[in-house]
Amino acid sequence: MGKVNFLFGIHCHQPVGNFEHIFEEAYQKSYLPFLQVLERHPKIKCAVHYSGVLYDWFLEKRPEYIDYLIKLINRHQIEIMVGGYYEPILPIIPEVDQIGQINLQKEFVQSKLNYSARGLWLTERIWEPQLPQALSRAGIEYLMVDDSHFISAGILPEKLYGYYITEHEGETLKVFPISKKLRYMIPFKLPEETINYLRSLADLGSEGTAAIMADDGEKFGVWPDTYKWVYEEKYLERLFSMLEENCSWIEFMTFSEYLDQYPALGRVYMPTASYAEMMEWALPYDAGMKYEKLVQEIKKQNRYEDYQQFIKGGYFKNFFVKYPEANNMHKRMLQVSKKIQTLKKGKSLGGEGKKGLDLEKAERELYKGQCNCAYWHGVFGGLYLNYLRNAVYHHLIAAEREIDLQHKNKKGYVELSVSDLDKDGRDEIVLTNDYMSLFIDPDEGGGLYELDYKPKCFNLIDTLARRPEVYHEKIKNAALQGNFNFAEQTKSIHDVVRVKEQGLEKALVYDWHRRISLLDHFLAEDTTLEKFSTVAYQEEGDFVLGNYQYFPKKSARELNLRLYREGRVSGTPIRVDKNLTLFANQSVISIEYEINNLGQEKKSLWFAPEFDFSLLAPKADDRYYEIEGKVLEDKTLASRGEEEGVFGIKLVDNWNRFALSLRWEKTARLWRFPIETVSQSEGGFEKTFQNSVIVPSWKIVLGPLGKWKVRITLLIEE
Amino acid sequence: MGKVNFLFGIHCHQPVGNFEHIFEEAYQKSYLPFLQVLERHPKIKCAVHYSGVLYDWFLEKRPEYIDYLIKLINRHQIEIMVGGYYEPILPIIPEVDQIGQINLQKEFVQSKLNYSARGLWLTERIWEPQLPQALSRAGIEYLMVDDSHFISAGILPEKLYGYYITEHEGETLKVFPISKKLRYMIPFKLPEETINYLRSLADLGSEGTAAIMADDGEKFGVWPDTYKWVYEEKYLERLFSMLEENCSWIEFMTFSEYLDQYPALGRVYMPTASYAEMMEWALPYDAGMKYEKLVQEIKKQNRYEDYQQFIKGGYFKNFFVKYPEANNMHKRMLQVSKKIQTLKKGKSLGGEGKKGLDLEKAERELYKGQCNCAYWHGVFGGLYLNYLRNAVYHHLIAAEREIDLQHKNKKGYVELSVSDLDKDGRDEIVLTNDYMSLFIDPDEGGGLYELDYKPKCFNLIDTLARRPEVYHEKIKNAALQGNFNFAEQTKSIHDVVRVKEQGLEKALVYDWHRRISLLDHFLAEDTTLEKFSTVAYQEEGDFVLGNYQYFPKKSARELNLRLYREGRVSGTPIRVDKNLTLFANQSVISIEYEINNLGQEKKSLWFAPEFDFSLLAPKADDRYYEIEGKVLEDKTLASRGEEEGVFGIKLVDNWNRFALSLRWEKTARLWRFPIETVSQSEGGFEKTFQNSVIVPSWKIVLGPLGKWKVRITLLIEE
Repeated sequence: MGKVNFLFGIHCHQPVGNFEHIFEEAYQKSYLPFLQVLERHPKIKCAVHYSGVLYDWFLEKRPEYIDYLIKLINRHQIEIMVGGYYEPILPIIPEVDQIGQINLQKEFVQSKLNYSARGLWLTERIWEPQLPQALSRAGIEYLMVDDSHFISAGILPEKLYGYYITEHEGETLKVFPISKKLRYMIPFKLPEETINYLRSLADLGSEGTAAIMADDGEKFGVWPDTYKWVYEEKYLERLFSMLEENCSWIEFMTFSEYLDQYPALGRVYMPTASYAEMMEWALPYDAGMKYEKLVQEIKKQNRYEDYQQFIKGGYFKNFFVKYPEANNMHKRMLQVSKKIQTLKKGKSLGGEGKKGLDLEKAERELYKGQCNCAYWHGVFGGLYLNYLRNAVYHHLIAAEREIDLQHKNKKGYVELSVSDLDKDGRDEIVLTNDYMSLFIDPDEGGGLYELDYKPKCFNLIDTLARRPEVYHEKIKNAALQGNFNFAEQTKSIHDVVRVKEQGLEKALVYDWHRRISLLDHFLAEDTTLEKFSTVAYQEEGDFVLGNYQYFPKKSARELNLRLYREGRVSGTPIRVDKNLTLFANQSVISIEYEINNLGQEKKSLWFAPEFDFSLLAPKADDRYYEIEGKVLEDKTLASRGEEEGVFGIKLVDNWNRFALSLRWEKTARLWRFPIETVSQSEGGFEKTFQNSVIVPSWKIVLGPLGKWKVRITLLIEE
Repeated sequence: MGKVNFLFGIHCHQPVGNFEHIFEEAYQKSYLPFLQVLERHPKIKCAVHYSGVLYDWFLEKRPEYIDYLIKLINRHQIEIMVGGYYEPILPIIPEVDQIGQINLQKEFVQSKLNYSARGLWLTERIWEPQLPQALSRAGIEYLMVDDSHFISAGILPEKLYGYYITEHEGETLKVFPISKKLRYMIPFKLPEETINYLRSLADLGSEGTAAIMADDGEKFGVWPDTYKWVYEEKYLERLFSMLEENCSWIEFMTFSEYLDQYPALGRVYMPTASYAEMMEWALPYDAGMKYEKLVQEIKKQNRYEDYQQFIKGGYFKNFFVKYPEANNMHKRMLQVSKKIQTLKKGKSLGGEGKKGLDLEKAERELYKGQCNCAYWHGVFGGLYLNYLRNAVYHHLIAAEREIDLQHKNKKGYVELSVSDLDKDGRDEIVLTNDYMSLFIDPDEGGGLYELDYKPKCFNLIDTLARRPEVYHEKIKNAALQGNFNFAEQTKSIHDVVRVKEQGLEKALVYDWHRRISLLDHFLAEDTTLEKFSTVAYQEEGDFVLGNYQYFPKKSARELNLRLYREGRVSGTPIRVDKNLTLFANQSVISIEYEINNLGQEKKSLWFAPEFDFSLLAPKADDRYYEIEGKVLEDKTLASRGEEEGVFGIKLVDNWNRFALSLRWEKTARLWRFPIETVSQSEGGFEKTFQNSVIVPSWKIVLGPLGKWKVRITLLIEE
């Protein structure tokens, strides 16, 4: 009988912006007990990766954990892997930031753990072929990806018990294939199964056979039901004991030790890839439905094993096509990164001097804003969690503020920029002063899609529309059958179907436009708040998705943007003008609407401009609506209601200590309702509050060539 | 009824190193008549791309073609697209060369055609996600790829009648999807079919619908049987006439005109991809067989339409895994490119001064050596054509010579380098003097895998092993059935199965090692030339694929490399030492072999070191074998024969005017035979001469701990 080398690794991470109690829970249920079990089994070796988010938290809250790591390093039981400090998905951030973030963690590990790391944990195993270049420049020697990456390249499954070499422009990288079998076995199956599988590999009798397992550390205790199984029922203890008992034919070594002992199995070039589930999630909805159907069919025929090598889902970056909100976050991040690089290269930005700029702080904020979790959505909440998106925007705005503070030498400035920020081939407009940045997209209804309140580094329009998801079918089916499945035993997270609340299927309402501000609706006579909020109404105009002409104007103390569109409302030619003004040193935006009847007939219109704001915390006591000085009875920012004859509304956030007021000069009917999405997370399907919709509306009658005006003021106060 | 915009483009190219008569034939049968037909139909617009190889040829041989292009540009009938000047596959060359080659062609088109190109023809449509960055830096605004690239990303087929925007690090690129339907229709189906298809698109009635067709210009006249159909039977004339007749609903415009008129359909991120056939070819043999079987099965079930979106073959760069010879060419190219870049950046290379270096000439040679055709193999000969590989090596060596001439200020130098050239994680060794470069791979039998004769810029060991190809099955099946199918009518090149000679199935012999020099065979007693050459013999030793220890030594005028391996010959421990010496200013290599019996028993050995040389032209009169001053009767370099009791052999190349001699000091039996591969080309299946194998051998008997020596000299004379 031959031997098998067991290479084992875990990766641990919590998102930037996650709640403190989640960190503490993950520490108690996983990070700490894992090392405790490991310590009791000195033969077992393990490569560990902690994101910088965790290192920062350990340092602040659990410094003893750092000492624990050092102890196990000194016992040669663990190998430290690094990654981008704040756990970015490497291929979606600029190369210079890839290198910067990896170096930051390498330096951290060097200084705090006295460890020179050779390996990298590749966030979500999202591979692109150009990575070896940056990684090699950052001094990374190896990483691990899924075996499916290799199989995609045409490597036979039986040739995956070792590592390969890949390169880009001649820069090399060693790559280990993570066994999907082991990934689904540990910790979900009995330890005996793992031992049997390892034995089958040892029986191959080839020199250097490696069994390679690396996966999320949270599988050991944090994922639903795993704490009971892994620690209380002693799965991990038993696994490690059984491994040690079989040390006559199982060799334990770190990845680095294996590299030093065995040559590569060959060369490989892997296409853009991630694990199969991720590539499925990245498909747009229609393609995703088709894919799911096909895979079900193949599985029913018991042909999945034969097909899976050649069956592939989508490509990660299409999350930015699937969710325009993720695209905005991504392109905003690229913009901030570019600003920093431009300053670093000493290029002129606005012609002002930049001597003595200290960009390290801005860079660290940018890096925090690159934390991957909020940029995509799969089995975890991710993009659907407003506090994660909020954290990304917070850090990006903070990075930008840091630059501004340093390179602007005067107060009271206004700045205008016109450029293709969202990379759709058409320009967006940004109006900025000391307090605010307004991002307007003329070809998306002339809408306001980002509104940064700078003193709080807060994007007030960090919303998310309700969209169909492939997994919504499961909720509908469960509702039809009148029952929901709850997981009863420890299963792979991919198999579990559970619902956090009943009646979720009623929330499956889909938006046909993004939930941004300054969208110009024209409603039919029979429209109600209920119909409008459940998208069961008739849009009479063509303005919401329409293309607006735009004319920006800048003077020393004032920015003005005139937007207009000549469109139609149920056949009648109508022109909507909206005139935005931002003054220096004021946190006020003035919006003048003018509606013109371009037709020869009298026309009744119900004009309803939409505003969307995301102040988080739908149920918090310290966040509420106020109208004309009175707190509303049903006051939370997730409340729904209709008021007649009002002149404005105020959204108060006593947690962040600011308030946003909308005021208009003509009495209006007012609707407010929450956008709540239905998404999956590791805990099951859940409803998530995204933002508050506020719609003042006016019923007006315009004679031939008649016009109507209203001025709306948006004001932020602390 | 709506309208449809017809966007049409062709790409024309001949490989660097192709024969003059092929250029002239392609000109007469395709490049010229295509423009002549186009000129007669002034409404039709066409984007054209010619590789720089063709532009160079036009300038030299058919300058009137340049004027013809200018005439059609001035008539606004054609749009010029550019590409890398010598038609490299962009993602396999360094980014700096991508930009350099594109700029070279942009400048050419600007100066000779007075045209500012906006679009790029992407060689073989081989896409990688990082391309927008380099392309944007090279001033490229758009390109076109296959619709399958988009479908891979999850875009629905019905949303492909326009262009999309993609980006990398914020740099954007506009991308058109080429319709596979149109690509298979034009010129292979009746023009009526194309018109009907265009009508179906016009019937969609949507604004800006584009029918996008772009493909190889050689489909119009050069591909088998197409000249008769396209020109003699007037297919193209009829197509253009019918298109013009329907100009009430077909709009003709260039890609640039379309861009100026219509916005993008959306954003897209495409994974690594090429057209489906290319991705199939890039699969390693085993995976390729599996893929072919699966696709056949799906097609039999009439499910291909449903599956194809998610069924994917391999990834282009794995040609470098599939064919180590392609890998060597590729890594050699990267090495030369890096040398040039290092000098350009003014970094020290060998500590010598580099002032006044003019690297433009070296760069152009490098660019020629990046021409794609020889680096891969699909339906054209490509890598299997020795003269194409030879051209690549010729230009790479010429580039290197140009650098050396400029930066070496003394004659009579020797240089030694040890580095991982082929990127397998283990070092190779290069010995260089004014005349020669020897590339040795210690872990591949200590073999000599490249031997450059610098005065002629000729790699003498540019060989290719015989390997199984998925399409060999077709030849075997045809042979079994006793008949071969010849194409009878104009079909898509992908459907045609034809064989250029009978009995090809007998040549389907597969090598188990590369055909390089200094491979140390030990043969069994019953081995014959026939058995050895058809790989039907028993290898008794473990040296051919074995790992050799190595000790390089350098003095001022001499390089020495000692290689040795302690291996086994049918159980007996045997050590093979080979000691290579290269002297300054001489085109001679001395190889001292020493065989040691490490065992305690007497051992009979049949030692047969293999040499492989590729001097091209298997049937040419001016290339032949000579033994001891006498031209062999069966003299060509593709001849097969056995000679007893000889002291050497000479390979004479009177065309290139040099000769290569191998001499040994102990009389030997000598085998020589050709390596002939069986591959497909657009003309059918064919046998191709790759190289001459030369095997001197000695039967020796070694007592316990006994040793035996022979010195072999390799000499090149002009």
